[in-house]
Amino acid sequence: MVDVCLLGTGGMMPLKNRWLTSCYIEYNGKAILIDCGEGTQIAMAEAECKMSRVEVLLITHFHADHVSGIPGFLLSLGNCSRVEPLTIYAPVGAKKIIDNLMCICGALPFKLDIHELPMDKNTKFIATSIDSMLEIESLPVRHRVNCLGYSFNFRRKPVFNPDKAKSFNVPLRLWRVLHGGESITLDDGSVITTDMVTDGSRKSIKVTYVTDTLPFDEIAELAFRSDLFICEGMYGDELQKDSMNEKHHMLMQDACYLASLASVDILWLTHYSPAMINPNEYAKELLNIFENTIISKDGQKISLS
Amino acid sequence: MVDVCLLGTGGMMPLKNRWLTSCYIEYNGKAILIDCGEGTQIAMAEAECKMSRVEVLLITHFHADHVSGIPGFLLSLGNCSRVEPLTIYAPVGAKKIIDNLMCICGALPFKLDIHELPMDKNTKFIATSIDSMLEIESLPVRHRVNCLGYSFNFRRKPVFNPDKAKSFNVPLRLWRVLHGGESITLDDGSVITTDMVTDGSRKSIKVTYVTDTLPFDEIAELAFRSDLFICEGMYGDELQKDSMNEKHHMLMQDACYLASLASVDILWLTHYSPAMINPNEYAKELLNIFENTIISKDGQKISLS
Repeated sequence: MVDVCLLGTGGMMPLKNRWLTSCYIEYNGKAILIDCGEGTQIAMAEAECKMSRVEVLLITHFHADHVSGIPGFLLSLGNCSRVEPLTIYAPVGAKKIIDNLMCICGALPFKLDIHELPMDKNTKFIATSIDSMLEIESLPVRHRVNCLGYSFNFRRKPVFNPDKAKSFNVPLRLWRVLHGGESITLDDGSVITTDMVTDGSRKSIKVTYVTDTLPFDEIAELAFRSDLFICEGMYGDELQKDSMNEKHHMLMQDACYLASLASVDILWLTHYSPAMINPNEYAKELLNIFENTIISKDGQKISLS
Repeated sequence: MVDVCLLGTGGMMPLKNRWLTSCYIEYNGKAILIDCGEGTQIAMAEAECKMSRVEVLLITHFHADHVSGIPGFLLSLGNCSRVEPLTIYAPVGAKKIIDNLMCICGALPFKLDIHELPMDKNTKFIATSIDSMLEIESLPVRHRVNCLGYSFNFRRKPVFNPDKAKSFNVPLRLWRVLHGGESITLDDGSVITTDMVTDGSRKSIKVTYVTDTLPFDEIAELAFRSDLFICEGMYGDELQKDSMNEKHHMLMQDACYLASLASVDILWLTHYSPAMINPNEYAKELLNIFENTIISKDGQKISLS
């Protein structure tokens, strides 16, 4: 089960009734926080997402509306008695910028394990501090600064078949090892592999998160067949298209086209301009482009299984 | 008339129902913002304080709960079409720290005019971008980093007496000049000074703002006979005294003693610990120490005249 909560849906600046766009993804009791703008720690409290479960902070890019909450968030984590290192994945240049931001924080009671990601296509890594089966892929997107889109592939173990294990006389204490993917050698010398005691593979759960970019086809490749695609849509008014091209953002319609191209199950729109008071007024047009479009609200949640 | 709004009353971290401590002081349509922690720009919107009127940002010290909202605040000011320079007064070291924080902001459409204040007693300066009659005094207080308390002395012009002006044949077009403090020379060569056409002095309006410090007597000297004294009180529980000494903060009781010593008109307590859920439970004890104590709430306002 992957629990996703979109903590805020705003772009540029936090509003009285709209937090800045960030996302909390929990899996097996451990969580990833994607971006951390001003107020994200309060949005987490409002949405009842557990700060103490965050093991990975993942940053799309270093514009203030996505990262200015980092100092407060890390200090509050420290006040939660955290001593274990926190893993941070972010575009190249992250160490210097985070170091700059932390000049107002004093010493934290835990270490930051910062991984700078390259601006290369098809960068894949395993988020070991969440789960050895969680593969994250990053894609450089087209913004005014280094910015990454991410796809989370929660790969799931094949279903364990106890009858098969028994038929090979595998002792109970080794079932877990085998299910985890390791082969074992029994006392009689026979080697048992995972595929011998499981029933095929299970579909991964895939979540893709893209914000602050011009639309382009590789985004749909990254998001291909996602269970959930979270994507920016700054405006619903097509008259804003030129402005979006200039500012390197996209319209809600662009996101819907990408969702359709990527054959995703569900699209959550987010990162609305403060000038767009009511994103829902474009609902009809957007649903015509991609029918499973959700015009997200702050605190929107889903459990994917 | 000086309008004061305490935007938040929290210390350390913003809570769902308590913004971080900061203060908005408006005088003749221009405003000072004191400190700017995470969420202060939203607190301003909630309290209906006008961001566009802020001409001075004044910082007590560079701990995250007092300054991490600066990048977002300045960007939002820029989005309000500001092009005029913004004056910033802050403890020595400010330029480097603000430069660090602004690494996530790109170029602002206005300049920052940063004045680093020394950690000396009795530093006084005129906040010309607010009013040539506004004198600010800073006092180094006892925190873990350079931290300043401030006293705002809104000096007021003496009352203009039209009859006196007429008796000297001062033309109407020069009344404003004379009232502003400049002398004039009439056609007949006679020199007229301000005191010749006014009726004595009016009491200044004085506001003092002190937070994040151990209590000590010079704070009461700074606050002496203030119309309003805004002071931190992290806890009301006297058992926290040792912890406060260690962390260089003060209890609500300490603030009340200082208010009494300083003979201020009104004390507003603020900067409550997130662990102090209901500051009002200490009201009786606090009022016994200083009867005009207000246990402030977010958005608390007063007009001083």
